Amino acid sequence: MVIAVDAAGGDHYPESPIQGAIEAVNEVADLKVVLVGPEDLINNELADQEYDRQRIMIQHAPEIIEMNESPAQAVKTKQKSSIVTGVGMHKAGKCDAFVSSGNTGALLAASTFLLGKLKGVSRPVIAAIYPTVKGVRLLMDVGANLEVRPEMYLQFAQMGSIYVREIMGIDDPSVGLLNVGEEEEKGTDNLKEAFQKLNELPNFVGNVEGRDIFNARADVFLCDGLVGNILLKFGESIPEALEIFVKRGIQQLDMGAEETQLVGKVLKASLNEFNPDRVGGVPFLGVDGVSMVGHGSSTPQAIKNMILNAAKCIEYNINEKIVASLN
Amino acid sequence: MVIAVDAAGGDHYPESPIQGAIEAVNEVADLKVVLVGPEDLINNELADQEYDRQRIMIQHAPEIIEMNESPAQAVKTKQKSSIVTGVGMHKAGKCDAFVSSGNTGALLAASTFLLGKLKGVSRPVIAAIYPTVKGVRLLMDVGANLEVRPEMYLQFAQMGSIYVREIMGIDDPSVGLLNVGEEEEKGTDNLKEAFQKLNELPNFVGNVEGRDIFNARADVFLCDGLVGNILLKFGESIPEALEIFVKRGIQQLDMGAEETQLVGKVLKASLNEFNPDRVGGVPFLGVDGVSMVGHGSSTPQAIKNMILNAAKCIEYNINEKIVASLN
Repeated sequence: MVIAVDAAGGDHYPESPIQGAIEAVNEVADLKVVLVGPEDLINNELADQEYDRQRIMIQHAPEIIEMNESPAQAVKTKQKSSIVTGVGMHKAGKCDAFVSSGNTGALLAASTFLLGKLKGVSRPVIAAIYPTVKGVRLLMDVGANLEVRPEMYLQFAQMGSIYVREIMGIDDPSVGLLNVGEEEEKGTDNLKEAFQKLNELPNFVGNVEGRDIFNARADVFLCDGLVGNILLKFGESIPEALEIFVKRGIQQLDMGAEETQLVGKVLKASLNEFNPDRVGGVPFLGVDGVSMVGHGSSTPQAIKNMILNAAKCIEYNINEKIVASLN
Repeated sequence: MVIAVDAAGGDHYPESPIQGAIEAVNEVADLKVVLVGPEDLINNELADQEYDRQRIMIQHAPEIIEMNESPAQAVKTKQKSSIVTGVGMHKAGKCDAFVSSGNTGALLAASTFLLGKLKGVSRPVIAAIYPTVKGVRLLMDVGANLEVRPEMYLQFAQMGSIYVREIMGIDDPSVGLLNVGEEEEKGTDNLKEAFQKLNELPNFVGNVEGRDIFNARADVFLCDGLVGNILLKFGESIPEALEIFVKRGIQQLDMGAEETQLVGKVLKASLNEFNPDRVGGVPFLGVDGVSMVGHGSSTPQAIKNMILNAAKCIEYNINEKIVASLN
């Protein structure tokens, strides 16, 4: 199995992707990784590392797509970027997956244009991992489609269910449609129609509300990319905001240094579920290939876990299962 | 000043509204309250209370709209409900405001139909209070309009700014449009058009993202009722979910009873901003009257604060200021 890794993406390249790739290779016996990015940059970083030279290779890609570049424009003009090169390698069969913690929009655009869609898929979707009190669950779409038609929700539900079952290990995953109320007549006309389409699925639990997310009332939460993107970024902001809320609480109670430290320790342990490093990355479901994107701030651990997730997608033939489910 | 209070709304009627009304009257010298609901129920609750009989009156309304009833249907068929009676009294000039912690949809429907809209207002909006690290801010719409046209966002911004400045006491309030990115070309066509309309306002800070809410990057966060309702209910679920997250953290660290108690105390103090009782209720902005709704679980303190907020809306001529700003 060969997985290509974007060595020039994210906030901490090349250290994070290269270190993460080395760790992944050390963990999985039959895994090979191709580091994609500017050769000098990669060689420089690899110079002081110990690693298996038979299983970590380099693919030179001199251009870098920055985090804030306009995706469509960047993919068009930077054909020699690590992202376009990596996805191109995947298309050409030179690797089984490509993972990046770089520009999400650019990776999505390159993946959609170059790899194409799986048979029967109307639109690819970004499925994000969301913390709940029962462990992480899936929230989708989080930005690929700002407007989602009813039949797209149905496909998202099918693709998400397979991902949650196969990769996240949740048996009989349930699907909920995020809405303003539980009753089937709630929401916009579009959501009402989506409810009817989703009702065909045996694992659809109906409309769910904002308060149902943290309780994991569903394993797959469906929404349009606008709702999902706002919820995703809001969720990511919770740990830092809580730190500020708690600091203020501590001041209010006039606590000593030892007690303050204790509270900090508890808070850190409590918010483990919010740590994006544990999951590493999220897939673009519906593209004809395995393409995953990680958080810009990905640590080596995050990159390693993203690579392991991509390996699972390959091993478990996720895409074949999606095609079978849709057609 | 006379404020009518729904004595048969919310999860804890008649205790909460009646107790809250008594507290409000004790706090504000020139305030009179009319308790609206089934006479017997109210008299029974008032029997063992000490209160100023000159300033707390009763308006009999035998019917009760339950929390889960379909709003339009309930308003139509229960003409003698506390909600329809209370709003009707306001329309007839028998009180200066009506507040309720009952069925939000029914109160919105009754307010819109009976009171009508302020001059120049296209659609009334529910403006909710949202916790941030800088104190509470305004999130709107949270459910009155699931789809919001660009010119409606502009009106929401103007109405929200006035409410935040006059009632919440934030000078020069800023307005942000919730979107998937900061750049003005982000989002749906509708949001792009809304951005252009909002750009006419001197206090518009542009698009804001999910991560900007807790940081209070704006004082008024604009979104459609679908996004707002999901965010509102999600936000309300945070304290309870955190308790579970923290309990797990405590177990993980194998902490003693004393330490556990300490952490619980800190958490409670830290999440004070999330306590809906502090604010009490939120207004329907744009209706020709003062109509406020509180959380179903409202305590007497919440009802008292909602009454005081309604009093402020009357005193500061919120609606006159809104009409002047729009026309």
